[in-house]
Amino acid sequence: MTTLETISEQRCFDGTQGFYRHDSLACGGAMRFAVYLPAQAQIAPVPVLYFLAGLTCTEETATIKAGAQQLASELGMALVMPDTSPRDTGFEGATGDWEFGEGAGFYVDATVAPWASRFRMYSYVVDELPAFLATHFPVDTTRASICGHSMGGHGALTIALKNPGRYRSVSAFAPIVAPTQVPWGRKALPRYLGDNTARWAEYDACELVRLHNFPGSILIDQGEADRFLTEQLRPELFDQACAESGQSLLLRRHPGYDHSYYFIASFIDDHLRHHAQALGLA
Amino acid sequence: MTTLETISEQRCFDGTQGFYRHDSLACGGAMRFAVYLPAQAQIAPVPVLYFLAGLTCTEETATIKAGAQQLASELGMALVMPDTSPRDTGFEGATGDWEFGEGAGFYVDATVAPWASRFRMYSYVVDELPAFLATHFPVDTTRASICGHSMGGHGALTIALKNPGRYRSVSAFAPIVAPTQVPWGRKALPRYLGDNTARWAEYDACELVRLHNFPGSILIDQGEADRFLTEQLRPELFDQACAESGQSLLLRRHPGYDHSYYFIASFIDDHLRHHAQALGLA
Repeated sequence: MTTLETISEQRCFDGTQGFYRHDSLACGGAMRFAVYLPAQAQIAPVPVLYFLAGLTCTEETATIKAGAQQLASELGMALVMPDTSPRDTGFEGATGDWEFGEGAGFYVDATVAPWASRFRMYSYVVDELPAFLATHFPVDTTRASICGHSMGGHGALTIALKNPGRYRSVSAFAPIVAPTQVPWGRKALPRYLGDNTARWAEYDACELVRLHNFPGSILIDQGEADRFLTEQLRPELFDQACAESGQSLLLRRHPGYDHSYYFIASFIDDHLRHHAQALGLA
Repeated sequence: MTTLETISEQRCFDGTQGFYRHDSLACGGAMRFAVYLPAQAQIAPVPVLYFLAGLTCTEETATIKAGAQQLASELGMALVMPDTSPRDTGFEGATGDWEFGEGAGFYVDATVAPWASRFRMYSYVVDELPAFLATHFPVDTTRASICGHSMGGHGALTIALKNPGRYRSVSAFAPIVAPTQVPWGRKALPRYLGDNTARWAEYDACELVRLHNFPGSILIDQGEADRFLTEQLRPELFDQACAESGQSLLLRRHPGYDHSYYFIASFIDDHLRHHAQALGLA
């Protein structure tokens, strides 16, 4: 087990907002993540909500912009926000393109060199980070839920659908639901996973939900003024896949809202309450 | 009256978070500001809370980090967050020092060249911006309150004390209350205002409160883990000045909180409710 390096800790809504770094085995180098611990964690371990951010984001983005700490403080829920990829990989092509490489890990375990040695965000988020948290923080990682935005919404949906026993609930803001069909996915997945499209399907929420349902209803919020709506996000594909496979889904469409954190902040409390109910906090 | 340029508008908590630019006469060039308009503004003009940010900040800082829109949306209150100084002045020494010049206007009307031609944030905030808002936005600037952080807390306190009829209430987070006595003020004020210390005192909350009280109680929140507390902020000086001059003050000290927006976000709702009551919204 690697050691925990504290970057900063600041008091926030009676709890602590911290930023940390550790050496990741899955990602072959240093990884950063943010943890909000409510005051209740001083009494007993608290359940965890993972929030996975989108393209270009870091562990700071949702921490600063989503406004999730206030209600997490009331509910007694930890918020864990990892970075969106390994950093400083030095791989050719890893920086300079916001849709691929650093800041764009797509929450997969890459199988193609050189990415396979570092870009293993799937294993990092599902296995390594929870184990590390359980050792170093007063959190109960057996009570966990997962949420995300855009590429992170894709991460949340695919991770939950592949590991239904590990998460009590799942939700997403403006998620990529069909990466095998949209430009973002069709650009990134072959470079991480190779040309066999069957491998891509293992990280496609529309494909996964046809294999096995997630217990309980999935919550998705989508802004109708989102400029990525019709080309990259296409929530109707997931709506249809859920309908056809019997998956319970609450897909809410919000006129006027875009892809930004102003949209996320406007509805984050609904997501926290959704997860709190599943986690036995509400 | 100059024209309004819309930089961006995004839906947020059923209202609109906008960023704007206009040509300022007071500041001799373009100025940027942010406005949050709650949905109630579609029915009738809404009252205004000005929020003045601190050193190094812009109109984006509190807009993104303070988390004020949620309750402003419920209360039906507009939030106006101006930039902290003119920009792109080209003056020698205007950039490169975070404690003076661009990003550090100190909410004064400078009288020393070259600053006097651009650094007139006092007149901008007190007169020009409200008049501009009243013309271009569905806000009732006759119902206004003012709040700020650090250097912006200094701005809020001094502006309210100098213009008690214009603001229904005033509050601050970790304000500079005695700029004539602390390093930040003793560095900036002579450069903006010259060597006559009587001119500095016109922008010193501890001096001003001895001249005339503000009607109603002033609310100040201060974190006790604030690294600027003992050298730059010294809230005990304002506490004493208020006590001696009969000014009602609620100074709350919060153990563990620092100077950051995690501190502000933790208590911003209390400030909005303070102002809402004075504005007849609560």
